[in-house]
Formats: sequence, structure tokens, C-alpha cells
Amino acid sequence: MSGIYLDHQAASPVDSRVAEFAGPFLSSGFGNPSSLYSSGLAARAALEEARAKVADLINAESPESIVFTAGSTEANNLAIRGTALRNAARGKKLLASQIEHISVLNPHKDLKKAGFELDLVPVDSTGIIDLSALERMIGKETVLTSVMYANSEIGTIEPIKEVSALVHEKGNFLHVDAAAAAGKVRIDVQKDNIDLLTISSNDLCGPQGAGALYVKPGLRIQPVAFGGGQEKGLRPGTENLYALAGFGEAARLARLEGAGESERLKAIRDALIGEILKIDEAYLTGHPAKRLANHASFRFSRIEGESILLTMDAMFDIQVSTGSACSSRTLEPSHVLLAIGLKHEQAHGSMIMTLGRSNNSDQIPAIASATKKTVERLRALSPL
Amino acid sequence: MSGIYLDHQAASPVDSRVAEFAGPFLSSGFGNPSSLYSSGLAARAALEEARAKVADLINAESPESIVFTAGSTEANNLAIRGTALRNAARGKKLLASQIEHISVLNPHKDLKKAGFELDLVPVDSTGIIDLSALERMIGKETVLTSVMYANSEIGTIEPIKEVSALVHEKGNFLHVDAAAAAGKVRIDVQKDNIDLLTISSNDLCGPQGAGALYVKPGLRIQPVAFGGGQEKGLRPGTENLYALAGFGEAARLARLEGAGESERLKAIRDALIGEILKIDEAYLTGHPAKRLANHASFRFSRIEGESILLTMDAMFDIQVSTGSACSSRTLEPSHVLLAIGLKHEQAHGSMIMTLGRSNNSDQIPAIASATKKTVERLRALSPL
Repeated sequence: MSGIYLDHQAASPVDSRVAEFAGPFLSSGFGNPSSLYSSGLAARAALEEARAKVADLINAESPESIVFTAGSTEANNLAIRGTALRNAARGKKLLASQIEHISVLNPHKDLKKAGFELDLVPVDSTGIIDLSALERMIGKETVLTSVMYANSEIGTIEPIKEVSALVHEKGNFLHVDAAAAAGKVRIDVQKDNIDLLTISSNDLCGPQGAGALYVKPGLRIQPVAFGGGQEKGLRPGTENLYALAGFGEAARLARLEGAGESERLKAIRDALIGEILKIDEAYLTGHPAKRLANHASFRFSRIEGESILLTMDAMFDIQVSTGSACSSRTLEPSHVLLAIGLKHEQAHGSMIMTLGRSNNSDQIPAIASATKKTVERLRALSPL
Repeated sequence: MSGIYLDHQAASPVDSRVAEFAGPFLSSGFGNPSSLYSSGLAARAALEEARAKVADLINAESPESIVFTAGSTEANNLAIRGTALRNAARGKKLLASQIEHISVLNPHKDLKKAGFELDLVPVDSTGIIDLSALERMIGKETVLTSVMYANSEIGTIEPIKEVSALVHEKGNFLHVDAAAAAGKVRIDVQKDNIDLLTISSNDLCGPQGAGALYVKPGLRIQPVAFGGGQEKGLRPGTENLYALAGFGEAARLARLEGAGESERLKAIRDALIGEILKIDEAYLTGHPAKRLANHASFRFSRIEGESILLTMDAMFDIQVSTGSACSSRTLEPSHVLLAIGLKHEQAHGSMIMTLGRSNNSDQIPAIASATKKTVERLRALSPL
């Protein structure tokens, strides 16, 4: 990667300290945590150490409240299907914010086949959830409410404490997808009274293929896949020890360094936003202040995000995103940008930059200049 | 790992050539295969190269028939739930052999909640499926039949070609769990007319956290988790590029070297079996000839498998297994050993050795001697 990489949310390189820590689990330190001989017990110990580190990052009551998965999509599926199906006796209504990730929205939608009703809670033009709408829409029969900690496309951080108060006053359980937020925002599941929380390893610069679901002690959920008894029967299959050990170490580093790194990235982010908003008809998407420290997102009138991405890459070796990578191969406009009130043609002109450890303030002039030249070039070509 | 490791089925170290091949995907070569810029396209190309290598290992019609998952448990769940639920109009009866792995049996059992009926096809005393029972039990309303390629506890290789002929004459679709067999036996999904086949990366000395489901072109299945459109909508979530690239390379090496390596291991296995059967009241479990080249499994009267495992580890630094690692923390006797007709007390005296690249014939005397001493020691302590 020779250029400037600004899409850490789609994929992040594994932190070299994490790779060094977890490397032995690929070779000499391998083992199956379910095996009873000494190397199996060592593997089990490594797994439990990782679990404790992840629990610490979010101030979970105990490591036992962490269920390891192969990623945030699996954790979201387990949270939503596992909670709704297990607790359907409380009611078969579901709520989710309009701007949830598709790995949250799609499990909710699929539950309609099982007789659940889903309603989507609107957000304002900055992406903040409409709390009075939530209050009107929620009731005792609402078994699960999903509101993300922060949105990956527009960076907006949601008022989770207020959401949690409403959910626990009027509804039942709160699921929070914190894949984009963990490590960037200090998360405290006890203080915020969160029932279920999703975290992703790679978003912390840990290996891909690992994620976790926090489940509040006492909350009963059911598995969504069936096999061995791993993860207390909630997630069968031999544990991916390399990825999970690395995830644990990444969580430990994020707990120690997240606040400082966020301060550093915020300064770069704000300078970048300042420069890019100087471009004609450039607009910030998402909330100007309540946003992830590493997240800068924009829209430009009269041009296409996909063309921005391709031009920035080909001409300037700068990698940006134009929406969720998971949806990038569809031609649909982003459901997030539509939810904050943009028209289809406005939503198509989106550019997202997510900063990470490889970025520094020296890169700001090059990024700003490349963006300006890209926008001008595309507008000159545009028939609009 | 200083001693002699004989539990390659529970966990295998990643082949050093695989680690070298896939290593760059942890750092400089990382990327999200759904991203549209150059490094994303390179990630996509690496993913598709891996898919082609896995397809080649089993002579699949095309790479498109391979769905990547996070492991064999997930592949088995997708095969069974995804096929049964999508094709329920053909009938709601399921068949599985009595000795399937629990990641096959448990998804089948869970489908009873969705109105499916499950029957288990018996096996003989060597673990070979009873074909005439299968013929009696199967019918047009049998939507799915699961018979494993080879059993991980007793090593027996099933007559898949005959099973396939019966399933396609009288029933509908055949699922074959080849997690234990792939790489050890030459698998040809076209010649054997297999509809769905499960493979695991780590069983090929590839990284943990990767598996695949082969789905015959034309067979429609549905996803069992919901989110992004990865893997043609059948398995959502950002792809674990390191694990999948490594899986592909491991599959390529297995295709090139599997036959030779199996010949080498078979000679060690046969010598080991010869030595160990000299021990008083030691019996081979599984089929004497139709068994995996790397697999030697025994039972010893009057002692416990768990004690064998712990003694071999503590006194001789030799790691063996006493059953599926996935079930190792239960006190239940193995359903596989009960299915081949052993009594509870016989089933408890099980020891399994699965050989791999680190094993050689020089180790045979030490393994045989350690086993003999362990058995004698435990029998001397035994009250039975």
C-alpha cells in the first residue's frame, strides 16, 4: 500500500504488535481449546485471556458475558435472531433505527417470516435517532430494539444512554451494534445499561474473522447455528485461535491507546473537513460534532461517488469509500443517506474517509488537493 | 510442541508454505474484496483464486459452486438448514447416518422445530452405512440425506458412490461432510454425483476460521444468516482474506501432495496399528481397510479414554484424542461408538491417533511403548 489509505472501516491492516502476539497460534502454539491435553489447555487459556481483554474494553460484568463469533455480521445475527426467537413470549415487535447496518436490518427483516413485526425509527438530518419517535413507537411487546453506537457511513454517534433509558422504561432489550464505534469511543455496557453489544476485531486493527457479542448476564438467548458446545452452546465450531487471540490483544491496545489515538485522528479529521468543505458545493454528511474521531464523510453535488473513488485511486493512489463496502456492488443509493433526507441524486455523490494508524497530518494537503482536483475533473466531464 | 502430536484432526499447525503464501494478506496485501479501488480488486482476485483452488481439489464444475464460510460447522449448517428450508416443497423428511458429526446431527435435529422428520440410518460394526436400511428408509419425500465421507472418530470411509446412487434414485439431495476426508481421499463431486459437500481449511493444514460448502450448480439453497451480499447472498460478512487465501493454497498443496502424503502416513498408521494391537485386550475401532490413511483408533478394555489421553500427555508428551474434541467436555459416551455396537463401558476406553506432516516412522516405537505402558499403568490402578 504505497498511497494514502482512507478506508479503514472496510478493512484495516493488522497492528504489527497484534500480529506478533498472535503469530505463534498459527504454528507452535496451535491447539484446540476443547482438547484436554496440555496444549489444548494452553489454547483454552489463551482463548479465555482474549475473552477477558474484550470484556475489559467495554467494561462488561465478566468475561463470561462475551460470546466469540467469526465477525460482526454473525454477532448481529446471533443478537437479533437469538434474542427475538428465545424471548418471543414477551412480544413479537421489533424496532431498529433506519440507519442500521444491513447485517442488523436484514436479520430483523427476516424475522417477519417468523411472525415478527418490524418498525424503523427515523433519524434527523444529521443521523441522530428521533427519541420522541422511539418513545411513541416502543411498547412492552417490543422484544428487541437495535440502535447502533455510531454509523459507519456518516460517522454520527447516537445518544445510547437516552435510548437505553427509553428501551428499559417502555420496552425490553436493547441491542447496540458497536462495530464502527468500539475503540474510538469509550464504551461502558454497564453504565449505559446495554443488553447486547456487537464488536468487530478488524475495526480494532485485529485480525479479520473474529467478532464478539456481549450478552448481559441473565439475558437468555438461543443459538442460530447448531453443532458442538463451544461458547456455552451459543456459537458452535472450533475456535479460530489466531484471530481470537489477536482480537483480544487488539482490544487491550484499544483500551490503552484508543483515547489518545482518537484525539490524534480528530485533529486530522477536522483539518481535512475544513479543507474539503472549501470545495464548491461540498457538504459534510452526518453530525458536525457528535461523530467518530476517525470519520469524515461528504457529498458533492453533480458527481457520482463511485467515480470519485475510482479517480482518487487511479490518479492519486488515495483509497476512499463511497458507502458500506458490504453494499458497494449494488447501484442502490445508500439507505442511510436517504434516511437523513437526501434525494437520490444527492445520495449518489458520497465520499467517506475513515482514518487509521497509517494516517498523519502531513497527508492533509495531498488529500485535500486530490479531492479538489477529482471533484473538478468529474464535474467538467459531467453532463449535469 | 516438543513431543509427538497425534491429534491433527482436532487442530493442525498451518503448513509453513501456506503461512508464507497467506501472510501478506495480514499486512500489506489486506483489503476488502467488496471495495472497488485497486487494493479491493486485488483482494477480490485473491479470493477468487482461492475459490478456484478449492474447487479443483474436489473437481467441482466451477469455482462458482464453492461458498466460503468460517468453518465446517457453518458449512454443515448452511447445507442442511439452507437446503431443507428452501426445498421443503419436495418433502419434509431428513435422513442422516447415525455416526455423523454433531455439527451435522444437531442442525438436522433442530429442523424438527420447523416440522421436519429426522431418521438415522444405522451402520455396521465397522461403521459402514447399512445400504439396505438406507434403501428402505429413503423416499421421494426425503428432501435431504447426509452421509459423511469418512468418520473422524473411527476413520471409516463410507461407500459414497453407492449412497449417492440410492439417494438420486429414490430421494432428492445428498449432503456429504468431507471435513475429515478431504486431502486424504481423492474426492470428485461430479463422478460421485454429490449435491452438497463440506470441507474444512484446518484439516488441510490451512488456517483455522475457513471452510467451504460445495453446492452443485442448479441446486437452490437459502442463507441461514443475513447481512451483506457476499458469497452470492449465501454467507454475509466481510471475507476473512488471510484464512481464505491460506485455505486455497492448502487445497492446492493437498491436491498435489495428498496422495503421496497419504501413502506415507498409511505405512506409519499400519505399523502403529500392528504394534498397538499386540497390547492385551486392545481392539481396532472402525474398518480395518476402508479407513483414512492418517487414522488409527482403538479401544482398550477396563480403562478410560480420558485417563489414557492425560497419561500419554503428562508422562510421554504424546497428544492423542479420545473422541471428537467438540464433545470432549461432556461425559457422554461417543454416539459413534455406541452406533457401531459398543457397550457404554467399551465406548469409554477409546483412543484416537490422527497423523500429520510432523509424524514419521521413527516415532512408532516410542508411541507403541508409551501406549503399552499407559494401558498397563491404568489397568493396574483400575478397580475393574
